[in-house]
Amino acid sequence: MQLAHSTAFHPRKHAGRSAYTNDLQRYAMTDSTLLKNMEILFNPRTVAVVGASENPGKLGFHVMKSMTSGGFEGTIVPVNPGAESVMGIPAYAAIGDFPGAIDLAIIVLPAKLVPGIFDACFRIHVKGIVLITAGFKEIDDPEGAALQDVIAGLANKAGVPVIGPNTFGMLNLRHNLNASFTPEFSLLSKGDIALVSQSGGLSHVIGFLAMRQNAAFSKIVGLGNRLNVDFAEMIAYLMDDPETRVIALYLEGLDQPMKLMAEVRQSHFAKPVVAYKTGSSRTGNQASSSHTGSLAGKHEIYKGAFRQAGILQAHSSEELLDMARTLSLCPLPGGRRVAILTGQAGPGIAAADVCESAGLEICPFHPETQRVVNELLPPLAMRTNPVDMGPAWYSASAIEGIIRAVMDDEGVDGLILLMTFASANRGAVTGISSLLQEWRQRKPVVACLIAPPGIWDAEISLLEKNGALANFPTPERAALAMAALAEYQEMKSPLQ
Amino acid sequence: MQLAHSTAFHPRKHAGRSAYTNDLQRYAMTDSTLLKNMEILFNPRTVAVVGASENPGKLGFHVMKSMTSGGFEGTIVPVNPGAESVMGIPAYAAIGDFPGAIDLAIIVLPAKLVPGIFDACFRIHVKGIVLITAGFKEIDDPEGAALQDVIAGLANKAGVPVIGPNTFGMLNLRHNLNASFTPEFSLLSKGDIALVSQSGGLSHVIGFLAMRQNAAFSKIVGLGNRLNVDFAEMIAYLMDDPETRVIALYLEGLDQPMKLMAEVRQSHFAKPVVAYKTGSSRTGNQASSSHTGSLAGKHEIYKGAFRQAGILQAHSSEELLDMARTLSLCPLPGGRRVAILTGQAGPGIAAADVCESAGLEICPFHPETQRVVNELLPPLAMRTNPVDMGPAWYSASAIEGIIRAVMDDEGVDGLILLMTFASANRGAVTGISSLLQEWRQRKPVVACLIAPPGIWDAEISLLEKNGALANFPTPERAALAMAALAEYQEMKSPLQ
Repeated sequence: MQLAHSTAFHPRKHAGRSAYTNDLQRYAMTDSTLLKNMEILFNPRTVAVVGASENPGKLGFHVMKSMTSGGFEGTIVPVNPGAESVMGIPAYAAIGDFPGAIDLAIIVLPAKLVPGIFDACFRIHVKGIVLITAGFKEIDDPEGAALQDVIAGLANKAGVPVIGPNTFGMLNLRHNLNASFTPEFSLLSKGDIALVSQSGGLSHVIGFLAMRQNAAFSKIVGLGNRLNVDFAEMIAYLMDDPETRVIALYLEGLDQPMKLMAEVRQSHFAKPVVAYKTGSSRTGNQASSSHTGSLAGKHEIYKGAFRQAGILQAHSSEELLDMARTLSLCPLPGGRRVAILTGQAGPGIAAADVCESAGLEICPFHPETQRVVNELLPPLAMRTNPVDMGPAWYSASAIEGIIRAVMDDEGVDGLILLMTFASANRGAVTGISSLLQEWRQRKPVVACLIAPPGIWDAEISLLEKNGALANFPTPERAALAMAALAEYQEMKSPLQ
Repeated sequence: MQLAHSTAFHPRKHAGRSAYTNDLQRYAMTDSTLLKNMEILFNPRTVAVVGASENPGKLGFHVMKSMTSGGFEGTIVPVNPGAESVMGIPAYAAIGDFPGAIDLAIIVLPAKLVPGIFDACFRIHVKGIVLITAGFKEIDDPEGAALQDVIAGLANKAGVPVIGPNTFGMLNLRHNLNASFTPEFSLLSKGDIALVSQSGGLSHVIGFLAMRQNAAFSKIVGLGNRLNVDFAEMIAYLMDDPETRVIALYLEGLDQPMKLMAEVRQSHFAKPVVAYKTGSSRTGNQASSSHTGSLAGKHEIYKGAFRQAGILQAHSSEELLDMARTLSLCPLPGGRRVAILTGQAGPGIAAADVCESAGLEICPFHPETQRVVNELLPPLAMRTNPVDMGPAWYSASAIEGIIRAVMDDEGVDGLILLMTFASANRGAVTGISSLLQEWRQRKPVVACLIAPPGIWDAEISLLEKNGALANFPTPERAALAMAALAEYQEMKSPLQ
């Protein structure tokens, strides 16, 4: 009995290990130097911008702007043979001319110059490279692929991790490092989500969405052509990154999908991984091939592999962000039994529909919980789950009493809280803030607290910052977020 | 041949007429006075607020605030026996004391007082009523239903349309009329969408969403318990309302669903109708019953009936707004052949996936179009549909040339335009604005133009205002919007 339970408890861990042994061993042989250097790549003290420029028509201008305006506290070294300084910072003709150690080099010069620059970098023991330059494996020309092979050989020999080529760059927001050509990314909030993406365009879509939704990142990494830092390497690094709590992936196609899957499985659910995979359509698959030089591959195979590996699957860029944000803000529910507490009936009905179709149970309350709710709401109200708190809408203490009783119910795994602003109840969020703070991280609370812009924003922001809830603009998206939490919990502990 | 075509052209119109004849005739007998008075209800010159108050704890305070701060240009008549004035406006003890004609009465007093107030209203020939008061059919008490029957008898005898009871009210934004208890609704933009909703909560969710998404309304109507103004009456009225171009419905359950369906069919697709129906789940259905006194009913039956009636179905509050907004901004496509033009590959792939799964065709271009695209993009770029304009990303004239050629291609029914902000291409939207303006309303353009908040907002807003495109925060939602346009077009003209 005991043995049967313990074997079954992590069935995938045991079943999976042997299948991936070869992959893992091969990987383990090569990654120790790379991983060590990735730590420096993401936390450099001195950063060279090779191709730094004061000409706004050049990417080297925008990278310099990112580096100088992002609050980076280390040393910036512009490299440009034609300039004495760039943006007021002394420039060097070659990277080797700088008299100190350089940890990270960001390169924006044309592809054909890259082998020489790599040589120069490795000669002075640069520990990491962000290679923004395009024109390698992604172009429909064998010369691009050949050039990529050449520089991959150089980087691997030196044991230096390279983000790119053909990338917008990367950010370590916690280190105030914006090593990208998008200075505006420094406006992002600092948080726990690491986004690793095969597409610069999608990274920007998600980043700009995040600015509108309080989503907060530890790192954003555009993998580009993945010279020697692929999804698997990023997973390995981020699983040990204390600043990252949730890993969000955008991917189109992989050369070694099993390597990524093995890396996630090996983590034993240490951190949630959410993935959004495109290229499912005929057209999308072809386009993906042109984009980053990988076929998107059979969508159904990925779907099964994600699940087996313990990766939660998102179905749109918006959902990827919703899921990652929820997992970064909320604890996991013990199961699928949820309570819906709503200030208005309609949103409660919309949420109930989504819950049921996503397999969540709108559970009956414990008799004691029900007794309390019955005491606080008039007989004519909807007092069973989903509870319409409308009749108590103007009594802060009744609302608080209902929430407290339901949160305290051991038969309830998570709470969906829906409150729509009414002029007569402007104080509704303030009224429950301390209760939610008190309960934070005990059970997941997903919410749709919605008001005209500017009215509840600061209070909701604070609640999210403190991990008291995850808020969404609609009741349906709140319900879907709860379903994602429950799904992840079930992948993690199928027998509980 | 000619006859066969003309019969087949509107197959549902012919097939449907006889089935609904009884319903339509019964309806036609009662609605002429009601419809005439609805015109006055929505465009009153003098509005009485029965229960007006200066106490912020009363709904009568918030209604007065809505009326006084919404820019209403007519006369406001506070009715309150205990006050000489409310918010600086002379008050009357009873509605009959006002010496002039009153077009609309907004009532916020307790249910038991309503029959008496109705009597008083009809004695002075009030033409319309917004009855915010709750405590009628929606409560689980036969007295509530009985009281509703009494006031329905009074209203129907007088031929006076009543919005409510148990509603937040209604707005005619084009008339600066905010007859609701939510003054903040006056912040909404004036546009072409009429939202008719069975839930006050959902109306507020959608309204507050709309404030964040440039969605603009002609009217918002909370039907509440639907005393004598139900969805069918609103459809009849709005089909003739010159200020409304698209009708969006939120519904849970109907007493006479066929009456609504008949009304929409009878309009012969004069205006698009989009509906979001909840209550599909067991729990949702029960909750809906308590909410507005109607069972939600079998979801599958509604789904079929919507399609037969020519109503486009949305699956979430967000989608309802996305669809309504697209239909209000874009012309309909001739068919399902779309072009995807993207500034970055990733968003193009995500959109292509959605298009294919929604049945849109990412069509090949006409040879002449392809010739132009090939001229403007280098050989290594993705030049067939979906086109990655990335390599021309910094040449405004090349981008414009590509868009123009594709828009001009008669084999392309609609355009999905995706451009993600890059610091080096801040001017991208400006660069194509005049082209899009020139082409507006010729073919639908749905877009995901996304930037950090504040950067492209004004330009996008202007393009939307002029009907040059409908913009979405993600490529997937843009693609879904195009699919909705095509679906509506096919319902409208199945044989084209």
